[in-house]
Amino acid sequence: MSANYRNFRNSVPWLILFLEAVFIVLFYFLFSQGDESRSMVSYAAFQDVNHMVIFGFGFFLTFLKRYGFSSTGFNLLIVVLGVQCSVLIEGLFCFLLEIPHKDGLKRITKAAVSITAVVISAGAVLGKANPVQLILMTVVEIIVFHVSKWINSIYLQVPYDIGMMNVHLFGAYFGLAVSSRFSEPSPRSEKNASTPKSALLSMLGTLFLWVFWPSFNSVLSVDRKWEVAYNTYFALAVSAVTAFMFSAMTTKDGKFRMAHIHSAVLAGGVAVGYTADRIRHPWIAMILGLLASVITVLGSYCLQRCLNPALKIHDFSGVHFTFGFPAVLGALAQVVLVTAENGTSLTSLGYSVMFHIGAFCVTISMALITGLITG
Amino acid sequence: MSANYRNFRNSVPWLILFLEAVFIVLFYFLFSQGDESRSMVSYAAFQDVNHMVIFGFGFFLTFLKRYGFSSTGFNLLIVVLGVQCSVLIEGLFCFLLEIPHKDGLKRITKAAVSITAVVISAGAVLGKANPVQLILMTVVEIIVFHVSKWINSIYLQVPYDIGMMNVHLFGAYFGLAVSSRFSEPSPRSEKNASTPKSALLSMLGTLFLWVFWPSFNSVLSVDRKWEVAYNTYFALAVSAVTAFMFSAMTTKDGKFRMAHIHSAVLAGGVAVGYTADRIRHPWIAMILGLLASVITVLGSYCLQRCLNPALKIHDFSGVHFTFGFPAVLGALAQVVLVTAENGTSLTSLGYSVMFHIGAFCVTISMALITGLITG
Amino acid sequence: MSANYRNFRNSVPWLILFLEAVFIVLFYFLFSQGDESRSMVSYAAFQDVNHMVIFGFGFFLTFLKRYGFSSTGFNLLIVVLGVQCSVLIEGLFCFLLEIPHKDGLKRITKAAVSITAVVISAGAVLGKANPVQLILMTVVEIIVFHVSKWINSIYLQVPYDIGMMNVHLFGAYFGLAVSSRFSEPSPRSEKNASTPKSALLSMLGTLFLWVFWPSFNSVLSVDRKWEVAYNTYFALAVSAVTAFMFSAMTTKDGKFRMAHIHSAVLAGGVAVGYTADRIRHPWIAMILGLLASVITVLGSYCLQRCLNPALKIHDFSGVHFTFGFPAVLGALAQVVLVTAENGTSLTSLGYSVMFHIGAFCVTISMALITGLITG
Repeated sequence: MSANYRNFRNSVPWLILFLEAVFIVLFYFLFSQGDESRSMVSYAAFQDVNHMVIFGFGFFLTFLKRYGFSSTGFNLLIVVLGVQCSVLIEGLFCFLLEIPHKDGLKRITKAAVSITAVVISAGAVLGKANPVQLILMTVVEIIVFHVSKWINSIYLQVPYDIGMMNVHLFGAYFGLAVSSRFSEPSPRSEKNASTPKSALLSMLGTLFLWVFWPSFNSVLSVDRKWEVAYNTYFALAVSAVTAFMFSAMTTKDGKFRMAHIHSAVLAGGVAVGYTADRIRHPWIAMILGLLASVITVLGSYCLQRCLNPALKIHDFSGVHFTFGFPAVLGALAQVVLVTAENGTSLTSLGYSVMFHIGAFCVTISMALITGLITG
Repeated sequence: MSANYRNFRNSVPWLILFLEAVFIVLFYFLFSQGDESRSMVSYAAFQDVNHMVIFGFGFFLTFLKRYGFSSTGFNLLIVVLGVQCSVLIEGLFCFLLEIPHKDGLKRITKAAVSITAVVISAGAVLGKANPVQLILMTVVEIIVFHVSKWINSIYLQVPYDIGMMNVHLFGAYFGLAVSSRFSEPSPRSEKNASTPKSALLSMLGTLFLWVFWPSFNSVLSVDRKWEVAYNTYFALAVSAVTAFMFSAMTTKDGKFRMAHIHSAVLAGGVAVGYTADRIRHPWIAMILGLLASVITVLGSYCLQRCLNPALKIHDFSGVHFTFGFPAVLGALAQVVLVTAENGTSLTSLGYSVMFHIGAFCVTISMALITGLITG
Repeated sequence: MSANYRNFRNSVPWLILFLEAVFIVLFYFLFSQGDESRSMVSYAAFQDVNHMVIFGFGFFLTFLKRYGFSSTGFNLLIVVLGVQCSVLIEGLFCFLLEIPHKDGLKRITKAAVSITAVVISAGAVLGKANPVQLILMTVVEIIVFHVSKWINSIYLQVPYDIGMMNVHLFGAYFGLAVSSRFSEPSPRSEKNASTPKSALLSMLGTLFLWVFWPSFNSVLSVDRKWEVAYNTYFALAVSAVTAFMFSAMTTKDGKFRMAHIHSAVLAGGVAVGYTADRIRHPWIAMILGLLASVITVLGSYCLQRCLNPALKIHDFSGVHFTFGFPAVLGALAQVVLVTAENGTSLTSLGYSVMFHIGAFCVTISMALITGLITG
């Protein structure tokens, strides 16, 4: 261990202390007394999202041997830093744009949803970035994500809770862009081995994510909450069935392997996030779940063989196909559904589609560009 | 591994694909646009039941060494297939009997409660059935359970949420009937060994079930929700105390063994399920919990010595005494309580008791007969 | 194992049976029919507290090798006995003081919060007390805690939900007082070794506690529920950040060690418990969380070097600095905040401060005195 590296690591506590001090000072100036008699967000749903972010993503990312429980710890650190940062930036925007403040519970619920982008990105750079880089990435990504969300919201009139669903898209592509700037680790490195025990914990995380995904999708929806939860549940159910089917198909003896279903089981939840409040019939959600799962499985095969070596992306956690692809599918499905709904007037249709595509492009390009810069 | 067997296993993905396709097509025809502005089921309670079915039963059944985490996976597969199947059959009945549709959240909550029967049955045949058999059993059992529930509801005027509590009774006896049709596995088989680690996971599942059981019992109750949760909590608490007492009594050194309390701890929750909305005083729930726990412990001793070899039932998971016996006790307690309440008019009393006994007989005989046929 | 000891252990089941019989008889006389159409406590929040007490504390205390899963079992036993006992004593007080009964759900929620004191004390005597001692301690501590709470409530006009927050203070000092009466175990004893696996489970428990702490603090608050949850979340977040900072600072290579953050991560939640409903700005909660975390970390260093050998306290679980110190800080913060708020009239100020300090002294002295007697 070189002196340089040790020196570098020693800066971690001071970096954290500095950030925390800045946060407290900004909180002091930004947040005056709130008058929150009644919250619009259900407390139980907030608690579900909190549970999901800490346990679900915490365990989901523990599948590399060396990053066993310390990755759960890093996850906690990233989440607590990111939530404070996110509440601050949201408050800053509200202050600058003179929007009335939301109540406290809604504020941290939104921050907890936003932080998902960072956690997904952290999965992409897992095993490559050091703590200092991770912490800086957290702060930068939260800022850029909020900027991209407000651009969507102000210039493209994307509804707020839909704009929130860009977390997966943004998180996956930001993470990949950052990841591509790191040097390739030696392939035989012990760091990237997966042990049965870590795979098991990762599966546990997947189960947590699966169980709480309907809460995650529905928590920010205002008036169609239960319908969103209902559609998400069906999309997840069909995704899980499809994942099991592919797993049985690809193994020789027809057994299920947990590793196979690891990524595909969540695809439906990601894909349906954009459109869950528009879907009127459960069969549409089910077909979306089926497609998302198929794309994830096919994507994981193709990517690992062809694309990744070409683009020099080292995506051990499968962030690209677990969150990236289904999010793209979900954004497409949104455009298709909008087209099918407002079929009458061509002008407003083109307008609306254009806006959705615009929002999509803004999100993905901001993710890629800033990701590369951050890297 | 014979070619026949391999061929058999290869049919698993196609079976799943076929089922899923049928589900999506039926969903397309059955469920029109719902207008669900407000759900009657609390979302938090639904989430608890969902959590309990996936984590609780998933881990509860992992105590055989060989079926460690793949049984958690199977549990997920059974649940997602069964929930879709259950929603469909419920929708079909509503369509045929011209009952107005319920809102979406209530629909999946009811399906998640119904699926418990299948998961309990799956516990009884664990280590004996192959995936194809498990999947077919899921579909058949869900259909038969719904038929038996509707017979109870239409001909015997059993309130709907009480009829729902037959899940344990039905699940346990259906599972045992199916189980008795399988050939006896060799007793020294490594398949049925229990390791400390798997016993630990099983204990974890029991804790999940224990924590969420009040939610499970109260989720479908309409107007006495909190009282049901309250009574269930006390019944569970006394059950747990009794289970610890027996565990300390039966071991020589007075230590507690987790394996002993594994089944008895939940008995109170099962037994009180039928009557929780009628019980006015917590001490009745407490005595019911005590009795249920005693019956479970005595049952497990007697059964494993005398009855099982005679009837050729191989019940490794203890489904019979964990869920079967307390459910019978609960059904009896219901009759006793109804007798004690309507003590005045003999005619209506006899009528009511007859109906309850009738419902009990219908449920148990349908479970046994269809279980044997399925087996 | 001596005959005396074996005889002693054999008394465990009879003790449990006797207690349970007494509970059921008292329940029969005390609780008449309740008319609870609508509960004031959110069911989801109760379920969170229940989840936290069983899983959080159950795992938090599993870090000694020999007490792995049996401590989770003991935890369950203590909780179920203590909750029944607590509901009874609360009912007895209501009966004696002629206060109208609360609804059932509120009753068990309060009992579940009270039981935290016992679970914390159990952590302090872990590895020293035998089951009989633990069970007796549970009953005595619950009774004394309720007496001290009612003294605070009647003579010192402490609001009820604030009085409830004394659980940590009371639990920690009662446990330490009991603990100091036990003989010192041999330091090289295998009993007190910590294995990586048990440390991991303990970390898992910490995460459970961290996630559900906002629910715990807010569940008994009547009109400022969301604000309490919101302030608690920020205090916990800053505590977690500070804990990571100290962990990185004290290890040579700048890595995070989960063991370091184990106790400090919860300090903010404990400290903010007293004042969460008075805090108007999140930055106050944040600074409180920071201070609590700093005190915990410094406390753990000082105590283990100087104070413990002098006072013959053997606090393996770190109960003193995890729960005791932050609770003292929280009580002080409460006095400071009350001073800052009612700054105008000196008389009422002195009155109010005196009452708070009085309540604090009553709680801590009753904890120490009765703890020593019980020991």
